[in-house]
Amino acid sequence: MTSIKVLEKPKLKDPILIVGLPGIGNIGRVAVGYLIEELKAKKFAELYSEHFFPFVVLHNESEIKLLKNYFYYWKAKKSGQRDLIFLTGDCQSQSTEGHYSVVEKIIEFVEKLGVKEIFTIGGLATGEVEEEPIAYACVTDEKLIRKYKKYDLDFNLGRKVGYIVGAAGLILGIGAEKKMKGVCILGETSGFPIVTDPKAAEVVLKILTKILKVKVDMSKLEKRVKEMERFIKKIETLQRKAVMEMLKQEKPEPEKEKLRYIG
Amino acid sequence: MTSIKVLEKPKLKDPILIVGLPGIGNIGRVAVGYLIEELKAKKFAELYSEHFFPFVVLHNESEIKLLKNYFYYWKAKKSGQRDLIFLTGDCQSQSTEGHYSVVEKIIEFVEKLGVKEIFTIGGLATGEVEEEPIAYACVTDEKLIRKYKKYDLDFNLGRKVGYIVGAAGLILGIGAEKKMKGVCILGETSGFPIVTDPKAAEVVLKILTKILKVKVDMSKLEKRVKEMERFIKKIETLQRKAVMEMLKQEKPEPEKEKLRYIG
Amino acid sequence: MTSIKVLEKPKLKDPILIVGLPGIGNIGRVAVGYLIEELKAKKFAELYSEHFFPFVVLHNESEIKLLKNYFYYWKAKKSGQRDLIFLTGDCQSQSTEGHYSVVEKIIEFVEKLGVKEIFTIGGLATGEVEEEPIAYACVTDEKLIRKYKKYDLDFNLGRKVGYIVGAAGLILGIGAEKKMKGVCILGETSGFPIVTDPKAAEVVLKILTKILKVKVDMSKLEKRVKEMERFIKKIETLQRKAVMEMLKQEKPEPEKEKLRYIG
Amino acid sequence: MTSIKVLEKPKLKDPILIVGLPGIGNIGRVAVGYLIEELKAKKFAELYSEHFFPFVVLHNESEIKLLKNYFYYWKAKKSGQRDLIFLTGDCQSQSTEGHYSVVEKIIEFVEKLGVKEIFTIGGLATGEVEEEPIAYACVTDEKLIRKYKKYDLDFNLGRKVGYIVGAAGLILGIGAEKKMKGVCILGETSGFPIVTDPKAAEVVLKILTKILKVKVDMSKLEKRVKEMERFIKKIETLQRKAVMEMLKQEKPEPEKEKLRYIG
Repeated sequence: MTSIKVLEKPKLKDPILIVGLPGIGNIGRVAVGYLIEELKAKKFAELYSEHFFPFVVLHNESEIKLLKNYFYYWKAKKSGQRDLIFLTGDCQSQSTEGHYSVVEKIIEFVEKLGVKEIFTIGGLATGEVEEEPIAYACVTDEKLIRKYKKYDLDFNLGRKVGYIVGAAGLILGIGAEKKMKGVCILGETSGFPIVTDPKAAEVVLKILTKILKVKVDMSKLEKRVKEMERFIKKIETLQRKAVMEMLKQEKPEPEKEKLRYIG
Repeated sequence: MTSIKVLEKPKLKDPILIVGLPGIGNIGRVAVGYLIEELKAKKFAELYSEHFFPFVVLHNESEIKLLKNYFYYWKAKKSGQRDLIFLTGDCQSQSTEGHYSVVEKIIEFVEKLGVKEIFTIGGLATGEVEEEPIAYACVTDEKLIRKYKKYDLDFNLGRKVGYIVGAAGLILGIGAEKKMKGVCILGETSGFPIVTDPKAAEVVLKILTKILKVKVDMSKLEKRVKEMERFIKKIETLQRKAVMEMLKQEKPEPEKEKLRYIG
Repeated sequence: MTSIKVLEKPKLKDPILIVGLPGIGNIGRVAVGYLIEELKAKKFAELYSEHFFPFVVLHNESEIKLLKNYFYYWKAKKSGQRDLIFLTGDCQSQSTEGHYSVVEKIIEFVEKLGVKEIFTIGGLATGEVEEEPIAYACVTDEKLIRKYKKYDLDFNLGRKVGYIVGAAGLILGIGAEKKMKGVCILGETSGFPIVTDPKAAEVVLKILTKILKVKVDMSKLEKRVKEMERFIKKIETLQRKAVMEMLKQEKPEPEKEKLRYIG
Repeated sequence: MTSIKVLEKPKLKDPILIVGLPGIGNIGRVAVGYLIEELKAKKFAELYSEHFFPFVVLHNESEIKLLKNYFYYWKAKKSGQRDLIFLTGDCQSQSTEGHYSVVEKIIEFVEKLGVKEIFTIGGLATGEVEEEPIAYACVTDEKLIRKYKKYDLDFNLGRKVGYIVGAAGLILGIGAEKKMKGVCILGETSGFPIVTDPKAAEVVLKILTKILKVKVDMSKLEKRVKEMERFIKKIETLQRKAVMEMLKQEKPEPEKEKLRYIG
């Protein structure tokens, strides 16, 4: 089961969903996390799933928390702006089949909230340190390119890569089945084992805030990203350790003693 | 889904279930297969499952068949005998979690047919060629030992092994939850990669026919087992090949070309 | 979940299902793809599944698409012909257990459309470059051999192989449970890592069009197959890369730092 | 399916759930097992699951038992005490996704019994032999630290580790979703391949009995733990062997003969 606990039922008008989950360089996660803080968006729902890793993490030294994804909302303050829903979280599905079922649950949930447009944020690993990273984009419908090409987005993504793994892609793909329009924005990043890439996140954030017509003070970004990094790094390290432990449990070393078996 | 197709609804009186599925030395399968033939038991139901290997086999050169388990029945001919249900088949679940769900389905099905007693047949791999193999047994309730100790069964199985993997054990364990009494009979076999062990099957069959009070001509056993072996060997080889193919598909060799990825 | 979106509800009279999904040499896929184009068959339903790879692909550089299977229909134009349903797609299930559940969904869907006969097309990897590849066939019921032996089909498939992995076999096996008659036609191909084998596809197509009594201009086959190849190759490469990435995520390298754990 | 068989419906007043399942050093299991014996708690429910290993174990040489978790209850004898429910068992889920579904079932079950507080017991592997092991703790809500800091518990667990794998953590995490308050107590142990660590169990037991205001004679602990060890060791060895067998079955050695395949 994948279960969503609703903390509050916000009334939203034609909201846009903005998704930033953990991934390459954690660009989506830190960009969306920063937006949530700067806009003072409010948490209204939490999701957890059997498809997440089977462990709890300790916050503040001794407080147990399930791994979760979180939904926040923000209401438009002035004309030209739109109500926003943010989706961020500690992790994505740990199994390949789980991705579809978690994403189905997310789409079903936001459909009821009136979402007809989605932006997902991620990273494009180039294998090189990019001095001036740019942002790529792809869409659920080619007509959307016309609408967004005025922003600083490179739509020739297919020449670089041909697919998007995990939630950033599946949310748009399954959303499109429900007639939701979607744009995926990917910040260029080295893909080297760095935990967060604030530079690429900044490039993406500048474009996203222009599209959403919201003003966000970027000056604290690098500092805040470094703060977020501690927690993100912790969960990543824990996941890696947990996977190792689980693998050790699943594939124990052969015993010396003679093996008798029946069946 | 695990699905059972009923070909005929036999009226049976207090039937005993006898289970012989593929396993070590295929002792259960050939013993039960031989009983089915000699008693001319009638097939009345077929089971297939998503937990079996995802391929079909060719019978008689060009006829496609799903992998299945089969139910047969035989009605008592004289007093002292009991109506019998036989369960045999091409394979067991290919995944660890599938075992429980296939066995649950089997128990649910035979419970409706009035089964309150079960015998499962298997092999005990000793790692040595046994000149005069014996038969071990274990039970769902220690009181049953008293009833069956007069037969040539060694009930000190726990000194040899401590568990039974797969359907031969789980059918009894889950059956016991439904108050079914169960006995597992295991023929001693080397466990070397032999496909079928007719000698161990014969030891088990002699005991089983005594318990069931049925007369079976044993003279054709070795010949029939050799005939069955051809088909059993084919499926085993195919399963091994299929697993290899599936593993190859799942774990492809890294490509030389540089890997760019996004998400 | 495996979900089928119906775009149009065609009224079909006793239609035959023709299945060509990705596989060895992509023979089924390119043969059926060519038939769909040449007959101008119309797409009427799309299937996607949690059992497919959890990523989206980019079409035309920047348009996101879920991995899908597609249903097309074609109505008979003259007497002797039959209404046809084609099933083709981007991929098959990526997990062993998923195959059964995707195929069950397909059979359930086409049963409602009145399908009682199925042809599946695949490849037989011989390990050798075949100058003049032939086509093998197997059936769900041996009586069908009489009907189809007049076509250029070798029914001694069992001597070459003994099983059919994946959808080409399971669709017939599970279809047979619903009393559907089925024939599997396999074009001989080397099985070397070639993406598409137009020669083997042509052999199969010639036989299939004779059986179906449809006329198809074969002259464009090689050219069209080369065009299709680009897209097929892209998805295959992507799947391979995606699997590698997922494996990397699932089995991270051990860290140097001391491992403390609890539970 | 995960199924709970209720043997008796005890009437309990505001009971506390105490969980000790197999894990590092089996500290939870032996501590809770000893409490159950000393308090003469009564078994009232049994749980088994498709997520456990697919085999049965032999008790007393020849009696077949499914792998299970067990629920016991104990009613308060004097003022200041509380009714208690104990959860212990043979094993935890063998797959990562199974953990969530087994724990959901447990929480659902104990919620109906009125549970609003939970203690889970486990081990913290330090990698060193601890002469005087201490006990760490973490909580579902930081306010609980105030209540429990008077006991000999170190709440700076986050400095040692950052997560809890398996049931000990998930039961608290998912319990918290149902507003249950939870404390996890972890005894320091080497984590070397020892089966049971009575010393660490004793440290935890002393604290737990103080919290629960129950008196337990500790003098038999070491002796009883050694007795329990035999059975625990047996199941652990069997699980290890069973996993090896299953892995062997799943990943057979390549055959020499040429591989032909089709699909």
